[in-house]
Order: sequence, then C-alpha cells, then structure tokens
Amino acid sequence: MTNLQKTIAAIGARNEEWRAKAKARLEQLAIPHWALGRLLDMAMDLAGQTCSMTPPVERKAIITMAGDHGVTVEGVSKFPPEVTPQMVANFVNGGAGINVLARAAGADIFVVDMGVAANLNELVRAGKIIDKKIRMGTDNIAKAPAMSRAEAAQAVESGISVVDELAADYDMFGTGDMGIGNTTPSAAIVAALTGVPASAVTGRGTGLDDAQMLLKERVIARALEVNRPDATDGLDVLAKVGGFEIGGIAGVILGAAAHRKPVIIDGFISTAGALIAQSLAPEITDYIFAAHRSMENGHAIMQKQLGCVPLLDFNLRLGEGTGAALAMPLVAAAGKVLVEVATFAEAAVAGADK
Amino acid sequence: MTNLQKTIAAIGARNEEWRAKAKARLEQLAIPHWALGRLLDMAMDLAGQTCSMTPPVERKAIITMAGDHGVTVEGVSKFPPEVTPQMVANFVNGGAGINVLARAAGADIFVVDMGVAANLNELVRAGKIIDKKIRMGTDNIAKAPAMSRAEAAQAVESGISVVDELAADYDMFGTGDMGIGNTTPSAAIVAALTGVPASAVTGRGTGLDDAQMLLKERVIARALEVNRPDATDGLDVLAKVGGFEIGGIAGVILGAAAHRKPVIIDGFISTAGALIAQSLAPEITDYIFAAHRSMENGHAIMQKQLGCVPLLDFNLRLGEGTGAALAMPLVAAAGKVLVEVATFAEAAVAGADK
Repeated sequence: MTNLQKTIAAIGARNEEWRAKAKARLEQLAIPHWALGRLLDMAMDLAGQTCSMTPPVERKAIITMAGDHGVTVEGVSKFPPEVTPQMVANFVNGGAGINVLARAAGADIFVVDMGVAANLNELVRAGKIIDKKIRMGTDNIAKAPAMSRAEAAQAVESGISVVDELAADYDMFGTGDMGIGNTTPSAAIVAALTGVPASAVTGRGTGLDDAQMLLKERVIARALEVNRPDATDGLDVLAKVGGFEIGGIAGVILGAAAHRKPVIIDGFISTAGALIAQSLAPEITDYIFAAHRSMENGHAIMQKQLGCVPLLDFNLRLGEGTGAALAMPLVAAAGKVLVEVATFAEAAVAGADK
Repeated sequence: MTNLQKTIAAIGARNEEWRAKAKARLEQLAIPHWALGRLLDMAMDLAGQTCSMTPPVERKAIITMAGDHGVTVEGVSKFPPEVTPQMVANFVNGGAGINVLARAAGADIFVVDMGVAANLNELVRAGKIIDKKIRMGTDNIAKAPAMSRAEAAQAVESGISVVDELAADYDMFGTGDMGIGNTTPSAAIVAALTGVPASAVTGRGTGLDDAQMLLKERVIARALEVNRPDATDGLDVLAKVGGFEIGGIAGVILGAAAHRKPVIIDGFISTAGALIAQSLAPEITDYIFAAHRSMENGHAIMQKQLGCVPLLDFNLRLGEGTGAALAMPLVAAAGKVLVEVATFAEAAVAGADK
C-alpha cells in the first residue's frame, strides 16, 4: 500500500457526535441564539474535525508549494518564468506578501520546491526550503500531458509527507502556491472535473488584457482536447493538465484531513488542488475552510463543486497562501468561541423569554 | 466652545497626498498589479488617515458602550433589561463574546456605563468600567423623547472624552454596544436619517418571532410620529429616538476621526452611532471601516448611507464589539502590507511584460 493509498484510507468524515456536542454548548452561550453566526458554524465543524470540545487552533502553518509550467511558452502569463525562483528567494528573505500576512496571523511558512525550473540546492542545503522537486517544471499541456501518472502520484505523496512531518507541531494548515503560469492548469483542472467550458474558467491571472485572455482560453481548450483527462480520476486530471505544486497542494489537503486537522484553502490554484484532493477522497470537504473568493473567473465554480462558502471577499488574486493567512485568525477565533465564551449558567445571565 | 464643537472642528478629510504616496508604493510591490485587492485599498486609506507611510496598527482598543432603554416596556426585546448589567458583569469577568474575540485580536476592552439602569458603582470603584452614566436608562421613545438635547450632547461628549484619554496609547479603535432593546432606537435612527419606513429597518434583534417583530415595527413607527426627529440634525435625532450608548458610540467615532485614527464600526447599533456622527461631521466616513454586514434588517441601508462596504459577512448579530474585534486584524494586516511587503526593486524580482 502506498502512502497515498494509506492516507486516503485514513480519511473519515468529520464526527457528527462531536459536532452535536459542540452545538449543544454553543446554543447555551450567553448570547442570543446563534448570534455569532458563521463563527459558531465553524466552531461546530472544528469540533467534528478534531473530535474535541477544545479544538486546538494556535499553531498555524502555511505550506507554500512552488513549481513551474511548460505551458508558459504559449504566452499565458504576463510574467516570465524566472519570477518563480525569484519569488521563492523573496519568500526566504521574508519580504513577500505571504511573509507579511503569515507573520500577522502568527503562522509559520514552509516553502516547498515541487518543481521549480531552477537550481535551488543552495536554499535546500541552508534549510530554507523543503526539497520535493520532481523535475524542472511540467511539460507544455497544450501539446502533451503535464507529467506522467507516476509523477502525479509522487506530487500528491510529497504534499502528504510534508504534512506528516509537521502534523505533531501544528493545529491548522493553510495552502499556498507560487508558479508563473499556474492559473492555466488550474483552469484546465476545474474545466476537466466539472465539465464547464474553458471560457467560464479563464481569468486574467496576473493581469492579462482581453487578447491575451482569449489566447489563454484557447490554450486551455487545446490542453483539454489534446490530453482528454478522465473526469472521474483526479490523478489522471493532475497528470494530464495539472502542475507539480497543484499536486503538492492536493497532498497537503489529503494529509491534513487524514490527521483530522483543519486546512484553509487559499485562492484559485489552491482550490484546483482541493478539487484534485476531493476527487481522490470526497470526505476532504469536511476538513476545509475556503479562505476567500478570488477575483479569478471560475473560482466560484470551484467552490460550488467543493460545497464551501468563502470567508472573505477581498478581490485577492496573489496566491502564495496570502488569503489563507488572512483567514486563519477567523477560523482560530471560532475555536476560541467554543472554548472560552461563557454559557448563560456560567455567566449568571438571564435567558430569553421562551 | 464645547469639546463637541472643538472635536467637530478638528476633523478634516483624510489626506489625499499621503494616500497618493501610499498608492505609488503599493503599485510597486512585487505582486501582480493590485493583487492584494481590498487590503491595498485599506492600506491607502490608513496612510491618508494617519498621514504616514507607516501607519501604526498594533495597539487596538475596543470601547463597549452600555445603556438601557425605556422602550423595553413596550415588549420590543426577547430579553429582560436586567441582562444589560448582567452582561456588563460578564464583560468584567472576561467570559463574553467580546472578551474572547478581543483577546484573539490582541485588543484591550474598555466598558463604559453610559446609562445602565442599575447601580454599577462597585465596578466603577474597582476600576473595571468607565463611569459616564447619564441616568438610569432613556425614556420610552414610543411616548416621549429618549433624552433631552443637553443629555444627547453629553452622551456624545462622553464618547469623545473616552477616546481623548486613550488616544495616546492606541492606534486603532473599535466600537461596541450593550443595551437590551437597542435595536429599536437604532432602527428609528436610520429611519429618521434616511427617510426609509420603519418596516425596512425593523429586524429580529435578539430573536423576535413574526408577531413580536410587527409589534416592534409599530413601536418604531410610533416613536418617529410622536417625536418627529429633525433629519438634518444628528443631535436632535439622538435626543428624540436614540440611546445613551448610541450617543457614546457617535462620540468615539468623532473622537477617533479628530485624532486621525481608524475606527472599526461593529454592527447595527454601532452603525446607528456612525450615522449620528456622520450627521454631525460628514468627514468621519474617511476614518471608518465597516466590520461586517449584520443579519439585522436595515444594516445594508445604513452602510450605504455611510458609503462603506463591510469587511465580513458572517451572519453576526451579537454586538458588544464582536464584529469589530474580528475585523481589526484585517485592517492591521493592510497596514503591515504597506510597510513590510517588498517592491520589485527591493526584492530583485522581474516585473510584468508591458
């Protein structure tokens, strides 16, 4: 049995008894009934995920997966692929958006080289990034599969192994991505898994104009025609039109669910990873919180497929895990409400007129 | 010149030069253009409010204003008025929603007795709450004005004086309220100031059923008929159909704006306070961030009048400042993005194809 198979087998639904137990307490809090709305919904979910009335929420990790994409030769991004390793260096130096927002949230960041098209050995040796490099970027999905099926499995298992190593030290995970060109495979994944046309899921990415967006849409449509991914098989979709970092993100989500820990899903690329994970293990949806509604077209379609409603709507489209970092304190607050808010009886406050 | 007049005179618009300076830097951050969306909008606003490229955002204070309402004799709330002092005690003991969410946000809480219908001298003497009590609750607005014009001015000045005393020690304020029955005067305020009918702004408050809501709507309509508040005069509206804690909240907002500090507006009652403040000094809208969209009917109408879009939509309807506490880290994150995210040049990252 591979670690992927073992992990999938370990994922169960969240526990409805613990959710009900949490609900019973939350209904007794010294507040009008359910007056903290969504925080209480999340508190219930956290109890069901962790099988605990005191779900731990303090120790937060953002896992930012980086990889490059052969499809960039088609002109689908405003930025050159060199930006992927440059941004990895920026993450290591602490000056990127994710560094700032993770610090603000009290989260640690783990940057993982899943397949950056540059030699990052120095950063690996210095212990600054985690080395799970599969190879120097995927193949061009407009002409061939992104990767082999074995590489797709390896990408997902790499994400799982990162979580396996961190699970003892963290209560909550957030996903993040870096990879020039990666809105293209992400759009192809959602089109493949939901059957919507490329036009419905093609967005401006890092800032395409109308002509560039039309070109991108055609590239996505071609990737689907050339590769014919099997919509019932997440690994096939990942191999045919995905990316190494997207597979890594799917693995992080599977790993978190197997460890019964909440995982906060960032934007468009992370949500593509969640779709792959859902295809492999539908019960992962019990462990995810959608951080935000991205500006990228198609994100709403993805979130509908996952059955989740985003926590924030901030016109974000950066990735890196920035939305996840921003949303983590909201999820943590929900856990604290369950543990720390007094009930009517504890606080000696009169209840409502029945 | 009264402190109210001085404070109103001290409020200027946010500074457009500092906003422009912030915008210039934010456009150079090593991210796709404006890819942190709303965080960047807020970062610009913070620079304009504080006249600084490094707007301070660390030291956060929630000011929770408490008061009672004569109109509760009409049966407009599910909870008895005794709950107001009981909840004040709960705040002091640290077990309320606002305690938990303020701790989570790293914010200090200041509870102010603006007019609770109970003797709170012991808590005042122990230094646990701030005493600005005007009297033991307002009069019944269904039959008479809530308070005199002098009391309305005193309520607003009390809020200003609380901020005046805290301004040296805090970078950011959040508003909060406690007062059984206070969605009724809040609804009357928005109806008075915007001209919408009572039916459009009457909500379920702490959990009214349909029949109770109809009764509440009639009480609000009667309060407006009996008192005929002058829509052009915020102090008249506050005196005729307001509440002591609502006046205090208006004062907090005026005070924060006069000190050029951001103030995070909580839910329905706090937003009624913001409408009073706006009527007295329209430029306060440059200093406010709307924490969330409450479940209470009419909140959207209020936020439209203020010209602000809420940061969260979490089905909250608790008050106390809970929404403000939840939103404060989002505003703080915006300030940190301006200061800490590296530009393309600083990070040595290649820019977009022009």
